[in-house]
Formats: sequence, structure tokens, C-alpha cells
Amino acid sequence: MHKVAVLGVGMHPFGKFEHKHLKDLANTAIWNAIEDAGIEANRIEAAFVGNCLGGLLVGQESVRGQVILRHAGFKGIPIVNVENACATASTAFRMAWLSVISGMHDVVLAVGVEKMFVGDTAKSIEALSTATDIDVCGNMGLQFTSVYAMNIRKKMDKYGWTKDDLGLVAEKNSYNGSLNPYAQFKKPLTKEEVLASKMIADPITLYMASPMGDGAAAAIICNERIARKLKNKPFVRVVASELSSGHASMLESKPKDSTTYSTALKAYEQAGVGPEDINLAEVHDAMSPAELKIYEELGFCEEGEAIKLIREGRTKITGDIPVNPSGGLASRGHPVGATGLAQIAEVVWQLRGEAGKRQVVDINGKLPRFGLTQNDGGYVEGDNAASCIHILSRV
Amino acid sequence: MHKVAVLGVGMHPFGKFEHKHLKDLANTAIWNAIEDAGIEANRIEAAFVGNCLGGLLVGQESVRGQVILRHAGFKGIPIVNVENACATASTAFRMAWLSVISGMHDVVLAVGVEKMFVGDTAKSIEALSTATDIDVCGNMGLQFTSVYAMNIRKKMDKYGWTKDDLGLVAEKNSYNGSLNPYAQFKKPLTKEEVLASKMIADPITLYMASPMGDGAAAAIICNERIARKLKNKPFVRVVASELSSGHASMLESKPKDSTTYSTALKAYEQAGVGPEDINLAEVHDAMSPAELKIYEELGFCEEGEAIKLIREGRTKITGDIPVNPSGGLASRGHPVGATGLAQIAEVVWQLRGEAGKRQVVDINGKLPRFGLTQNDGGYVEGDNAASCIHILSRV
Repeated sequence: MHKVAVLGVGMHPFGKFEHKHLKDLANTAIWNAIEDAGIEANRIEAAFVGNCLGGLLVGQESVRGQVILRHAGFKGIPIVNVENACATASTAFRMAWLSVISGMHDVVLAVGVEKMFVGDTAKSIEALSTATDIDVCGNMGLQFTSVYAMNIRKKMDKYGWTKDDLGLVAEKNSYNGSLNPYAQFKKPLTKEEVLASKMIADPITLYMASPMGDGAAAAIICNERIARKLKNKPFVRVVASELSSGHASMLESKPKDSTTYSTALKAYEQAGVGPEDINLAEVHDAMSPAELKIYEELGFCEEGEAIKLIREGRTKITGDIPVNPSGGLASRGHPVGATGLAQIAEVVWQLRGEAGKRQVVDINGKLPRFGLTQNDGGYVEGDNAASCIHILSRV
Repeated sequence: MHKVAVLGVGMHPFGKFEHKHLKDLANTAIWNAIEDAGIEANRIEAAFVGNCLGGLLVGQESVRGQVILRHAGFKGIPIVNVENACATASTAFRMAWLSVISGMHDVVLAVGVEKMFVGDTAKSIEALSTATDIDVCGNMGLQFTSVYAMNIRKKMDKYGWTKDDLGLVAEKNSYNGSLNPYAQFKKPLTKEEVLASKMIADPITLYMASPMGDGAAAAIICNERIARKLKNKPFVRVVASELSSGHASMLESKPKDSTTYSTALKAYEQAGVGPEDINLAEVHDAMSPAELKIYEELGFCEEGEAIKLIREGRTKITGDIPVNPSGGLASRGHPVGATGLAQIAEVVWQLRGEAGKRQVVDINGKLPRFGLTQNDGGYVEGDNAASCIHILSRV
């Protein structure tokens, strides 16, 4: 298999952009990624386009990628539209990676985009609920907030998580988001403010929940052989890509029985590293307390010890295993089809030392070497429909 | 790159199945393919699921593949949802192929499914119109029937196609469809009946147009190394897979300027064969007269000579280059997200000598060696949004 480098990344800021279409959002991210990659656009040989809700929310059910890429100035290249709920963009990235490791293509674009503000919040929420089996779940009123609430409640009982712990995650991530120019929310919150915000689904309050959002993110990846000739920036390699559908019960399973854990194990094996080698992670905190569970599922700590990590500040930007330096889903924002590539972009910036005020460094001031992204999507038969994990490395 | 074999194919018949859901249709095709492959289902390592209109027509906007595969009994494998308008299923097949040539997986499932009869024809037609850029085309009322009508009218003027020629294509394909147990329409039509049927968009009449349809098709592909151990049927290899987005003007371009031609050329090069080596083809006759244009774009004849092929019966099952022995889109049916894999299934059956009354053989009674599938999808900026071509070979 060929080796794969990330040549460039780009984003359209996440937020509310009433006058922008899917095409506009994607266009910005794509051309930012091309500029960052420092290549001529005609070097791009193929594209994988991720979008989750454009059929129901924008009306563009079919050929979303072709419409987006024609608008962005591309024609004649292979384009594949990819969907995997909230893990859509990481799946598009993985498909781009696959087409480079196979040797089929040398330079490939992955882009994820979502337009969720369409003037009707109820419509957007209804669209989101199709990331379950609508016949047995979505149409019956089970929303993701309630799925997360049940999970978090169970973990509180089992592992002694307190409301303070839940608030601490949002406090940390809102601070990180305040340092991120692409973030939807830039106001640092105290845990008291988080806990005092409106109750959504006990114990989840408003400021713990990822918001509706518009946005896009993109990456140009390429055969390392090409990257070595082209790149004048620190070199970022994709050392693992793993995807799985759920095989566990999210509510019942212990960390080591979870789909995230088994997917992460495969990713660590592929990369030839362990959780102790990871210097930072962008994880799927669609509701910020879920981050605690993910610490354990990624092996950053043992079962039941997540609250030690958050209480001791070890997952802050200044900690030994920073998590969600971008602000995560709840602060950077979560335009669902774009999130996975925003995670990739953040890790690339961090590994290259370009993350500005939120730059992660170790106690000796050294840049991180390994960054991990963990992106979940959907909920089918009691578990994530998709679990997608990537590990990137500075070479 | 690894070599790829098609281990098994399966279909759910195409037609009107009011009481069947996406999940039911796909389930039948998947398990038929598994049975045909002769493997244990747990050998399947990954799945690519193609569906085009399930967001708008069934309401399952997101994680369609995960919902379908859980219902079919699968969990824990990587699943990617793929969309490319009418070329959706061939794109899913291509992604499965990619994951095997790369060496990432050994045994992979591709499935395409569509549910178009949802009790509201206007809704289904509106959903179909999203296979264009809805802002500049679909929402303005441009339907595929009119796109095809303009094209065919232009070809009639330029190359002397007569209404009789248009009728002859439908006559041939309806006869082929009458021999296909999976076909939606099984009544052989005369060209007179075709031309006398209701005018839809001059010169296209009702019996030239592919119908609404429900259906599914699937394939199990695998590393040839595995296939050689497992397979007790004639061995079918994927010798070319090509995908492109449009780069031409469908209305203006000569056959050799078309996206189909450039995609076919790459496929021939990949397979190491030329159009003269192809023994049968399944092509995208969404409106049956389009088949004539495709003869020229695939290089089966020179520019302007398509009408000689159809008049001389050379593309009949008994001809020297049989096209659409399955009945094609207009007779076998065209549940859009399933069509590409139905084409693959037909070619596999033909190469294995299992096509029953519609079996293609040469003048010496020998089975075909090379079969080609050509699957178009969508219409963006005056050309196919996706053009997907595969060449399969009996080894």
C-alpha cells in the first residue's frame, strides 16, 4: 500500500450563515485547502464529498458533490457522494485515503459540508433524527439528546460522575473554542454558567449540546511520493484510518466492549502506536459530557478514571493529553457533514504548529507528533451507526 | 494492486412492490448474492450501500446502509453510504472494488436499492429532478425526459435517425426483458406499438421511457486469491473500473468528445482490450433511443453508424455485439439506486452462461468473454454528472 500525506486543509467557519448555500460553504473550504496545499487545482484527480442532510434541508437529494464541485470550478474528475451521519466527513476523508493507498490516485480532495440553518429549526431537528432507523426509532421521537442523556445518566450512576464533571468538560472546550477563529461559539464559559443554562434532557444543559450549524471543511491528501516534492510545511502523514459500524450496546457496554474501543484498537495497531503515544485528540462530544466516556474508550485512561482526567486538567490544551483543542463539537460547532474534516484540519494545524493561541506543546515546548480524530455517526440498534478513527503523524 | 473477482450477484426483481420497504428489497438482493457467492456471511468485511432517493421518498435521509445491513443481519463492519444519482450502484460497486484492489479488504459487499413507488408519483418525479443542480435546473422544471428528448431530436437531425430506429431499440429491449425473470416489463413490444404509445416528450413515447421502479441488486466481490479457493462456478474478474464527472456538453458534443467516450477509453486501456473485444454490454438507456448514441460513445461503431447497428440487428441477443440483453433500463426497469448493480449482475450471469433464454453466445456457441456495463448519473451543467464504466471478464 502507498503512504498518504495530508497536503492541505481548509475550512469555512462554522456558524449561522443565512445567505450562504451548500455550494458557497464548500467552495470556501475547498479553495482554502488548495491554497494551503500549495498545488494547482488541476492536480486534483478525484473528490469525495460528504454531506448528510442536504436532501431534506436544501432539497439537493442527489449529486450534491457534482453540483458543489462544478460551482467550485472542477469538471471531468471522479466524484463520489458519501454519507455516514455525523461521521460523514471522516468517511469522505477515509475514502480519499483509500484511493491514494491503493495507488489509483495521487492527489485527492475530501470535503464535508452542511447547511443546517434553513429557517425552520423543527425541520432541521427532524432531519437529524433520520440518523437512526426511522421506522423503529427516529419517527417514534427518540432524539440524539435523549440518547446521550440516558447514557450520561447511567455513567453518572456507575462511575460517580458529578454534574460538576459534566460542566468542566464544557468549560474546557468553550475556552478552547474562544481561541479558534473557525469556532461557532467564542465565549469562554464557567462550569457554573454551563450548569445554570437551560436544561435540555437531564443532565444535559444547553451549553453542553452541540448547536445547529452551517460550515464546511476540506483536505487535500496525496501519495507521500508527491508530497515530498511539493511540501514546504511540516509533513503530516495519515498513519491509521479505521471505520466500523456498531456492534455493541452504547447504554450497556463497558468501555472495552464499545465500538469506539474496538475501532481505536485497530487504528492503534495500524499506526503502530498506543494511546500513550497520542499527543492530542479531537473527539466526538456532540454533547460535551460524552467526552468523558470517550477518554476511556480511546484508552486514555482506565475504566472509571475519566473524571480524574477532567478534574486534574490533563485534557486541557496545557495538559498531557489535550482533547478537543478546537473547542470540540459543542463550541467549534457541529454542521454534521463537515465535522469529521474539521477534526482532521485541527489535528493537521496542531501537528504543523499552526494552531495559534490554542497550540498544543509538551512540557519541553515541543510540537505534538501524533494526533487522533474520533468521529461518531448515527444511532442504529442501540449503538453508533458509524465509528471512524484516524491517526495523523508529524514526520 | 490486487486482482478482483465477482464471487456472487443477486437481485430483488424490479417492479412495483407496494408492501416492501428499502430494507426488504435490499435484504433479498444481499442474501441472493451471498447464496450465489457460496460463502458464509461473516466472511464479508465491509459494505458499500447505494441509494439515491431514500431521503426524500422514504424519509431515511441518513445511515441508510446501516439500517439496511442491521436488518439483513450484519453488525460491526465498515459501511459507507454512496450516492451518484442513476450511477449510484455502479459507484458502490467501484468503491467495493477499490477496497479490494487496495488490499484493505478481501471480501466486500456492494448493494444498490431504490424504492420509488411511494404512493405519490409527483413526489417521486420531483425527487428524481434533484439529480440536477436544483437551483439552476431541477427547480426550474427541467426533467430528464426533456433533456433526453432534446438530445435525441438533435441526433435525428444530424445523423438521420428515424422514428422507426427509435422504436427498434425499444422493440429489441422489450423482447430481451420478456426473457428476464427479474424484469419489470415482460411484454415484447413491436416498434409500431412503441411509436403508437403515449407521447411523453417528442420524440420520446411512453414505451421508450424507463419506468418508476422498486428493486435492489447486490454483488460480493473479493480478492482473486480468495476467489480461486472458494469458487466452483466460472470465474469472473473485474478488469476495469472507471468513473468520471461530466466534462462535455451532452447536446453539442460529438461521440468522441463525450464524457462516456473518454471514460470508456480509460476503461479499455485499464482492461487491455478495445471495443471490438466486448462481447456484450449493459448500457444506460434511461430513454431507449439513447442507446444509439451510446453505441458510438462506447466505440461499438463510428460516428453516425449507430442506426446501422440497430437496423441490422447486430445488438440483438443473437447479434455480434448484443446490448442490453437484460432488457435495459426501459424494460428490466430502473429503480435508480439499484440499476448499476443490476447491470453487473446481468453481465456476470452472461459470462457464466447462466442467463437462460437470453444467454448470449457467439456463432460457434461459445460463451462471451468480455462484458461491459455503462451507467450514467445525473445532469449538471449540460452533461452527465457521473459516468461509470466497468468491464468484466470470464477467466
